[in-house]
Formats: sequence, C-alpha cells, structure tokens
Amino acid sequence: MGQSEAWGAADGDLAILRARLTEHGDLESAASLLRWDQATYMPQGGAAARGRQLATLDRLAHGCIAHPEIGRLLDRLEKTVASSSNDPAVVALLRVARRDHERAAKVPSDFVGEFANHRAASYELWTTARPSNDFASIRPLLEKTIDLSRRYASFFAPFEHVADPLIDDADPGMKASTVRALFAELRQKLVPLVRAITSAAPADDRCLFQSFPEDDQLAFGKMLAGRFGYDFARGRQDKTHHPFMTKFSLGDVRITTRVREDDLSEALFSTLHEAGHAIYEQNIDAAFEASPLGHGASAGVHESQSRLWENIVGRSRPFWRAFYPSLQKVFPSQLGAVSQDAFYRAINKVERSLIRTNADEVTYGLHVILRFDFELDLLEGRLAVKDLPEAWRERFREDFGIVPETDTDGVLQDVHWYDGFVGGAFQGYALGNLMSAQFLEAALADRPEVTQEIENGTFDTLRSWLGQNVHRFGRMYLPAQLVERATGKPLGIEPYFRYLRSKYGELYDI
Amino acid sequence: MGQSEAWGAADGDLAILRARLTEHGDLESAASLLRWDQATYMPQGGAAARGRQLATLDRLAHGCIAHPEIGRLLDRLEKTVASSSNDPAVVALLRVARRDHERAAKVPSDFVGEFANHRAASYELWTTARPSNDFASIRPLLEKTIDLSRRYASFFAPFEHVADPLIDDADPGMKASTVRALFAELRQKLVPLVRAITSAAPADDRCLFQSFPEDDQLAFGKMLAGRFGYDFARGRQDKTHHPFMTKFSLGDVRITTRVREDDLSEALFSTLHEAGHAIYEQNIDAAFEASPLGHGASAGVHESQSRLWENIVGRSRPFWRAFYPSLQKVFPSQLGAVSQDAFYRAINKVERSLIRTNADEVTYGLHVILRFDFELDLLEGRLAVKDLPEAWRERFREDFGIVPETDTDGVLQDVHWYDGFVGGAFQGYALGNLMSAQFLEAALADRPEVTQEIENGTFDTLRSWLGQNVHRFGRMYLPAQLVERATGKPLGIEPYFRYLRSKYGELYDI
Repeated sequence: MGQSEAWGAADGDLAILRARLTEHGDLESAASLLRWDQATYMPQGGAAARGRQLATLDRLAHGCIAHPEIGRLLDRLEKTVASSSNDPAVVALLRVARRDHERAAKVPSDFVGEFANHRAASYELWTTARPSNDFASIRPLLEKTIDLSRRYASFFAPFEHVADPLIDDADPGMKASTVRALFAELRQKLVPLVRAITSAAPADDRCLFQSFPEDDQLAFGKMLAGRFGYDFARGRQDKTHHPFMTKFSLGDVRITTRVREDDLSEALFSTLHEAGHAIYEQNIDAAFEASPLGHGASAGVHESQSRLWENIVGRSRPFWRAFYPSLQKVFPSQLGAVSQDAFYRAINKVERSLIRTNADEVTYGLHVILRFDFELDLLEGRLAVKDLPEAWRERFREDFGIVPETDTDGVLQDVHWYDGFVGGAFQGYALGNLMSAQFLEAALADRPEVTQEIENGTFDTLRSWLGQNVHRFGRMYLPAQLVERATGKPLGIEPYFRYLRSKYGELYDI
Repeated sequence: MGQSEAWGAADGDLAILRARLTEHGDLESAASLLRWDQATYMPQGGAAARGRQLATLDRLAHGCIAHPEIGRLLDRLEKTVASSSNDPAVVALLRVARRDHERAAKVPSDFVGEFANHRAASYELWTTARPSNDFASIRPLLEKTIDLSRRYASFFAPFEHVADPLIDDADPGMKASTVRALFAELRQKLVPLVRAITSAAPADDRCLFQSFPEDDQLAFGKMLAGRFGYDFARGRQDKTHHPFMTKFSLGDVRITTRVREDDLSEALFSTLHEAGHAIYEQNIDAAFEASPLGHGASAGVHESQSRLWENIVGRSRPFWRAFYPSLQKVFPSQLGAVSQDAFYRAINKVERSLIRTNADEVTYGLHVILRFDFELDLLEGRLAVKDLPEAWRERFREDFGIVPETDTDGVLQDVHWYDGFVGGAFQGYALGNLMSAQFLEAALADRPEVTQEIENGTFDTLRSWLGQNVHRFGRMYLPAQLVERATGKPLGIEPYFRYLRSKYGELYDI
C-alpha cells in the first residue's frame, strides 16, 4: 500500500470524523436554541416538556461524541494525518476532538445520570434555601456535590490536584497550582488597594438611579453594541431574566439583556458585556464553522473579551467622551445636568459589597478568589462543608473588612455550587480580568492609535487586533498559548493591576 | 411461562417502545422549534447553518422511527398486548406507531436524499419562475416531481390508486376514489352557486382597506383568540411572513400571524384561523402527551377546526353582534360610520378570483378541487405536464368563468407542487370545510344554545363539544371514524352546502 493510498484512507477517516463532529455540533446548537427559547419566549406551560426535550438532546449529543467509532477514527488519524500534516488546523482539530471525546467517554453514563438527578434536586432546594437563609437544609446536598465532584475528577486520574480536571473543563490546560499562584499574588495587591479606595470619599452614583424608559435604554445599548462591531445581521438582542450570549452558528450569535427602568447601569453594561462575548464568537475563522474548533477557547478567554468591552473600554473616560453627549440627548431630563466627570465617577464607584454579581471592577477579583480558594479547600478535605459559612465570614472580614449578616448574602448567593460541580466554577471570571488587561496592553503597544479612536467613537483597530490575535483562532490554541502568542508574555497579574492602579488611583486620588 | 410473565415481558416492550417514540417526538419538536425560530426571530445570517441543523435533526428523527428495533417491538406487541388489551389507547398507539414506522422504514434512504435534493432545486427555481411567469423553465423539474411522487407511492404498493399513499400521508385512511366522489358532488353544486352569487351586485368591502395600526390589530386578534379559548399560558403569537401554528408540547402550542396596516382582514382572520388549529392541539388528551397519539388526526380534521373558528364562527352575524361594537371602539375613525351589516357583508364578499389563498368561503372549494383533480390526472398520466397550463385555463373558465392571464396567477401560484410531492397536497383544505360544517351541525343538534352563546361572545359550550368529540382523541381514530363518531354520519357534502346556501342565499338574496 503506497503513501497515497494511506493518505486516501486517512482523508476518508477525516471526512467521516468531521461529519460526526458536525452532527454533534448540530445537536448541541439545537439544544442551545431550546435553552434560548426557554429563557426568552417560551410560555410557562412549556416548561415540563422542554426539560425532557433538552434531556433527550443532551443524551443524544453525549452519545454522539462519546461513540467508540470516534475513538477509533482518532486512533487512526493521530497515527497518520497528525504526524504528517502541515496544517495546524487539522492537528488542532484532532487534539480538540480527542479532548471532547475523552471527556464524554471517560465518564460512565450511570454517573452522568446520578449527577443530573442530584444537580436537579440541589438546584431545586437552593431556590428556597437561599431566600430563607437556610444553609443547614442544603448542607447534605452540598456534601454530596463535593463527593460527586471528586468522583468526576477521578475519571481523569492521574492529576496533580483533584481540582485540575474540573478547572480544565472550563479553562483547558489550566491547573490549580498555576491559578492559585496567580490569585494569591493578585489578592495580596487587591486587598490594600480596596482598603485605600474605600477609605476615600465614596463616589456619588445617584444619577444612575432615576427613571429611564426601557425602549430608550435598549436602543442606546444596541447602538453601542453595533458600534463595537457586533453584527446584528448575524445576531439579535432579546430580554431575559439573566443576560447571556449564545451561539447557534457563526451567522447566528445572540445576546440578551435585562432592563431596570430605575437603574441605568443594568441593561447598559450587560449589553456591552454580552456584545463582547458575541463579537468574539462572530469573528472566529469561518473555516472552523460546524467543527469543535469554532468556539471560544475557554471561560477565561471569553470573559476577557466581555470584560474588555464592558469595563476597560465601556467604563473608560475616552469612551464616554465620545458617547456621553448622545446619552444626555436620549435622557435630557435625567442626565442633562450631570457632568461627564460625575457620570464617569458614578459608573466606576468602588465599594465593599457582599454580592459578587453586583461588585465593581476592583473588588470583583476578591469575590472570585475567595470562592476559588474555598473550592480547593473543600475538594482537598481541608475545609468541611459544615464549617464553610463561618469560614466565609472570616475570609470576608479579612478581604473586605465587612461580614455578611446572612448566608443568603454569603455562601448561598451564587447558583454555581448548587447547580454543578464544586471546582472550576469561578476561576474563569478572574482569569478573564487578567487576560483583558494583558490583551489591551499588547494592542496598545502594537496600535497606539486605539485610545484616540475610542475617543472618536470608533473601534475598528481594536476589534481587528483582537480578531487577528484572539478571536479567529477559536479553540485552536490552549488559553495559555493564545495569551502568549497574542501578548508575547505568559499570563500574569501585572497588566491588570497596573490598569486598576492607574484608573482608580486617578479616580480616588490615592 | 405463565400469563403474568408474558404480560411482564410485553409491558417491558411497551415501555421501551414508548421511550423510543418519545425520543422521536422530542427530535421532531426540536426541529419544529428550529423552524419556528427560522420564521420568527432568526437573523438572516443564520440561514445556512439552520438548514444543515434541520437536516441533521430530520435525519436523526427518521433514523429513530425507522429503526428495525421498533419493528421488532411492534411485531411482539401486536401479538401479545394488542390482542389481549382492553385499553383502546394502547391499541391505537400500536396502530399509529406501526404506521409511522412503516412510512419511514419503507422508503429507502437513497430516495429520501434524492427527493430532498430535487425538492430544494425545484423550490429554488420556483421562487424565480413564478414571478417571471416562466413555466417552461420549471417544467422538467415538475415532470421529475411527478416521477418521484409515483416512485414514492410504489413503496406502499399495492394500492387502489397511485395517489392513495400520497393522500394517506396527509389524511390517513382517505383514498382517491372517496375524495374524488365527494369533490365531484361538491363541484357540481358550487359552480352554479358561484355563478348565481357573482351575478348579483358585488359587496362593498372598502371599509376593510383603510389604515389600521398594527398594535391595535394584534391586540384585538389576541383578545378574540383568548375568548375562543386559546390558552396563552400555553402558547403565544408572533409575526411571520406566512401565518402558521406549531406545537412543541401540550403546554406550548404557538401561532403566528401577518399584519397589513392597509387590510384589516389579513391579521384578524389569520389569527382566528391559527387559533382554531391551536385550540385543537391544546385540547388533546394529556395522557397522549409525548406519544404519537398526541397530535391532530389529519390535515383535513385540522383544517376543519381552523376554518370552523375562522369562518363559520368568525364570519358569522352572531359573532359580530357580540364583537363589532368593540372593534368599532378600537378603530372609531375607520369603522365608526360603518354599520354592522355593512361590515358583515364586507368580510363575506364573494368574487371570482384567481388566487386560492385570497379566495372567499364559497369559491375556495373550487380552487382546491381543481388542483386535486389535476393531481390525479398527472399521476395517472392522463395529463402531461406540458399541457397543464392550458388545462388550468380551460378548467378555470369552466368553474369560475374567468381565465388567468399568466401562469404566475395560474399553475405557478402555489408552492406545494414545487416544494413537495404532487398528490395529497390539497384535498385536506376542502375536506376540512366539509367536516367543519358537519361538526357544527352536530354540535348545534346536541347543544342548540351555542348560537346564543356566540351572540353573547362566549364559546365554552362549542369548545367543550369539540373538545369532547374531536380534540381529545388526537390520532386515536382515523379521520373518517372520528367524523362518524362525532356526528353520527359518514363524511358528506350536505352540511357544508347547506351552510353555504343558507348563509350566502341570505347575503346575496338568491
């Protein structure tokens, strides 16, 4: 059998593999649409059947990617194509397909079923335990969640740290040791910064809490998202209880928002945030469409894009120099007498607060690091679930100087641990902050005109730089490789801390 | 092996069968949601991938219902459960599952692929051939469609008439011979009725063609649909290019409409029509949910419900006695000076027209019968495609006394033959008219208070009667059985003709 025949066979295998992966992607996209519909337009009567339909699609998608035939195709292709191919996209495809296949195939379906049931029960109980401040009732379920999280990790043994497989699910290639080191360093710098800022006079943000008609808010947010480069011919915005971005194909990447007529910041910044996610997905190489490469690289890289547009751009002085006059025109009676500087200070108010999702840029990282550290402690068995609420209060006092009076505002506040594994649920948020600043520094070093363009209300150079250096690669590189390729440096905390220090140093005169 | 053990095994088979059928139903519901989204909210950029995703879901759904294991389960269950079960729902389930399985399994997948490709090409060409009045260009494709329609039928041989399997697809149990006999009788009565009416002075319907703001139209239509009994907690209405009803579960049955601000009748009557379809689906026995019994019985029975609410109720004098004052309140400047009688005459204007979808109640049947007769002629080979345009003109002159000047307004007007099989595409519309009047006569005989209730703007008795006698059964009975059970008589043309004669005799004084 000659070389060409071997190649022919391999090409056939590659085509078959691609077809199977596309089928898997199509099932996942269908499930995503069912979820989008559930959150946007589904009538209440549709809930029960929708749950069953989603379970069916998830089961079929799992069966599709876990199918032994995919393993056999990969075995053959890794021997032939991967070793001889010059096409890095093919090499990456095989790596990513192998990863997705193993993640699905290594976990016994009994376990998948057991976890799905436990997760549903835990979520259900959390919806009442949280408002009634009843940690005791959910404690046994959280204990079981930790047990199940450890068992899940065990399917991917050997590992350095029991959290590694869980972290790797959301942020491929990241390990507990790396993340822990980054976060420890960041925390050491954030705690004194927060202390310094919150000792200064607090910002006055009352101008944000007036009456802002919904339609005007939505129109203004959409205008900004469009200016950033979110392509509405390949997307749309709808209203949901919690804002999110979802993708059905390269040509259909949607965002949602939530509007509060008494709080201007809610819809405005969630729109910029979700548009950041969507611009990432809309600019992945079209050649990766319908393949597992055609998605964002990780939770962290995704969050870097959403937070870059929401915060680093969307809460900056140059940005509001461009757009504050238009905002005043939309809301003349509310903002006509509020100066640009006062508005800028209002949207960048820093305060010690209890709730992560409402936290400002500076304190946000501390909320995340606290959770990440507890995840490791719980998985290692160094912290018992029964001691978690007290540990939470202690750590909160240490980091923020305040203490939540209830578990509702403490350990019960986030859904993540009650609707999924413990481990890997939070680090992406803070990794994204670090990456966002590192990407922006690199972009500014390459293209210093970006700042002036933002002040002119144009974003083409920044978006192109991100497209060239981040977006287009999809899942082709691991997050750490992607950061190093784009910025010339390994992921670090310095750019992010420099960004915070400079912006908030000026704002709070410290 | 004792009786109970045999039963146990059969029960196990039945549970497995039900699970497989539910999986099939879930895939079909997912595909329906993707289609709904395509027609309502999908951005234009999503089209290409959506087509591929739908093809994937359709292929998987087909593979699921055609799976040989379903055949084996049915073989065993038909021997054990069906013969010994007292539960008519189980007997019906096996019958319907057998039917769905055979319909999927008997058609070779090569053929399915060939037809899908041909259909896409034909539809694509039709979209340009129709507006450019170019029958010649699409003629070879229509010839191939007829060839493929015959081949499709051949998979279900033996049959009495080559159209029977095609008709049976939409209207189970109906045959060319039965439908032809009904339609011949109906045509014989309709032609002179149309002639008599169109010799009288034409109705003045200019009051419908003024400026009616979209939101007011939508709100009024939704109010009426709700009064009919369409449950918006288990449904919703959106706007699409063509109105339709779609169902994702018993708790999620949606309708769509299209609004023209210069034509009040468009959204109003399409809303009543689609609400009729939806009320049918919303009132199927909850025990049939997630099983193949949980759908409407046929195209004809479905159309009987939509046309009953749209026409027999929604274009009646008692109905507008109840609601015309409210309509005048919504549109005082447009309708304040238009009398109830004038409005009633306007919405029931009869005229010789070229286009089926715009036709009134009286002429509508003739449009359908003409198409049905041509379908049989084409399949039998008694009419060649090349002679179809001329045959269309001749027949039109005979039935309507007018002749279309173009094929655009003639043989090219409907999408059905260019996007599907020839055969079985049209009879449901006219069968539905016949059934609608027969159901209403029976309902009035049982519950004479229905007319007074309509005049009071309430519909509970009528809807309950339909629920008890038609809706709840889903696909449990064949359409002919369902009609006979509900009305005590086989399907006939008399009730429908009596209805037309009485209503339009009074209106046109003939």
